[in-house]
Amino acid sequence: MQVHVCFTPGEYPGCGERHIAVVIDVFRATSSMAAAMFHGCKMICPVRTVEEALQLRQNEYPAALLAGERKGLLIPGFDLGNSPLEYTAAVVDGREIIMTTTNGTQALNHVSQAATVYTAAFVNAAAVCERLRNAATDVMVLCSGTEGRFALEDALCAGLIAGRLAENAVLSDTAVAALAMYRDFCCSGNMIPRVAASSHASYLRQIGYSQDVAYCLQHDIYPVVPVFTQGKVTL
Amino acid sequence: MQVHVCFTPGEYPGCGERHIAVVIDVFRATSSMAAAMFHGCKMICPVRTVEEALQLRQNEYPAALLAGERKGLLIPGFDLGNSPLEYTAAVVDGREIIMTTTNGTQALNHVSQAATVYTAAFVNAAAVCERLRNAATDVMVLCSGTEGRFALEDALCAGLIAGRLAENAVLSDTAVAALAMYRDFCCSGNMIPRVAASSHASYLRQIGYSQDVAYCLQHDIYPVVPVFTQGKVTL
Repeated sequence: MQVHVCFTPGEYPGCGERHIAVVIDVFRATSSMAAAMFHGCKMICPVRTVEEALQLRQNEYPAALLAGERKGLLIPGFDLGNSPLEYTAAVVDGREIIMTTTNGTQALNHVSQAATVYTAAFVNAAAVCERLRNAATDVMVLCSGTEGRFALEDALCAGLIAGRLAENAVLSDTAVAALAMYRDFCCSGNMIPRVAASSHASYLRQIGYSQDVAYCLQHDIYPVVPVFTQGKVTL
Repeated sequence: MQVHVCFTPGEYPGCGERHIAVVIDVFRATSSMAAAMFHGCKMICPVRTVEEALQLRQNEYPAALLAGERKGLLIPGFDLGNSPLEYTAAVVDGREIIMTTTNGTQALNHVSQAATVYTAAFVNAAAVCERLRNAATDVMVLCSGTEGRFALEDALCAGLIAGRLAENAVLSDTAVAALAMYRDFCCSGNMIPRVAASSHASYLRQIGYSQDVAYCLQHDIYPVVPVFTQGKVTL
């Protein structure tokens, strides 16, 4: 098994070969997805546009919650934003969710042709790695990035995953690089303030979501492996 | 001053704003350029194609050496390949060189509209950093990569440069990431074998250039700052 990391969705080479894709959007879509699935959410439909979300609720899932963000903020008329802290059992248990976000849901739809697609973040990395450990095919870790650009937090999470799989896998150069980044951040012992200084975390703080930064950097608190298949995220 | 790193030429945002561009191609174009300039080469013309190189010699520089590579190997009829070990004083002192390589010369031509363009590698990083330290404009460090993809050695060199400028500069997220990678490789104390395991280094070994890998990872042996302006690299 080879583990390869794409630092941005643009680097994803497509699906010429069978592989498992792991989509990461630490701030905050895949962190929220893990929180939602852990707290009993039945299914998440990640869609690209607000219009698509509204239509899907109207036509197929009239009881679904509408969730997501634009520029990090709640979309007018939607039930939930994109903070994992909102996805409590009281809100999501037994519910369906239709979600549209700037980076994560776009990245998911980008890799939808892969043989298998998992969603990962720091909060559920251990469970995802456990599932991947004995994979027979290559693993392509896709960082959602920020509007197509490199996102530090996603690269670090990719590094954590690459490191945990390294014993049973060959790491590509980008996987080696991501792991080196993660190790440096880890060894410094002040990962949270260092990540908090990044551009995406600074923006979240600016719009009132500073709590989310530390929350999303917690490792392994949700033992769930969300799988994206046929347009739906389930367990 | 902000320091930003582009891990591949495709990430280069163009020249809407004035900035200094620093082009890195550790394996091996900018390492060879530093060696050439240190050993007395008068001028290097980096061009995109073999045909352009031949025409330029015929029309403008009949005494120039033709240099470069395709797939890492000497181009038939050319005087020099792309190994810095070839660029000795005996060969290049007082000479003009026309060079075409797969990644480095392409990247240089990609940023030719920047206010100032320097070429950097591990071998001349200290001199380039010294020149950049009091720059009034932002610094854009462009990794040449390998055929458009991420190259570990270039990212590490970008990290070295970012780290040396950090005291007087704001580092972008990619610069922070590159620096974290470099620190992890440096701290491990076995940078050469770790970089030698990368895909580009493995390929160089396979085609007989294993010496070049360790050579190009030497830090600060050439105190030169090659400047690329109006199609020419000079000091």
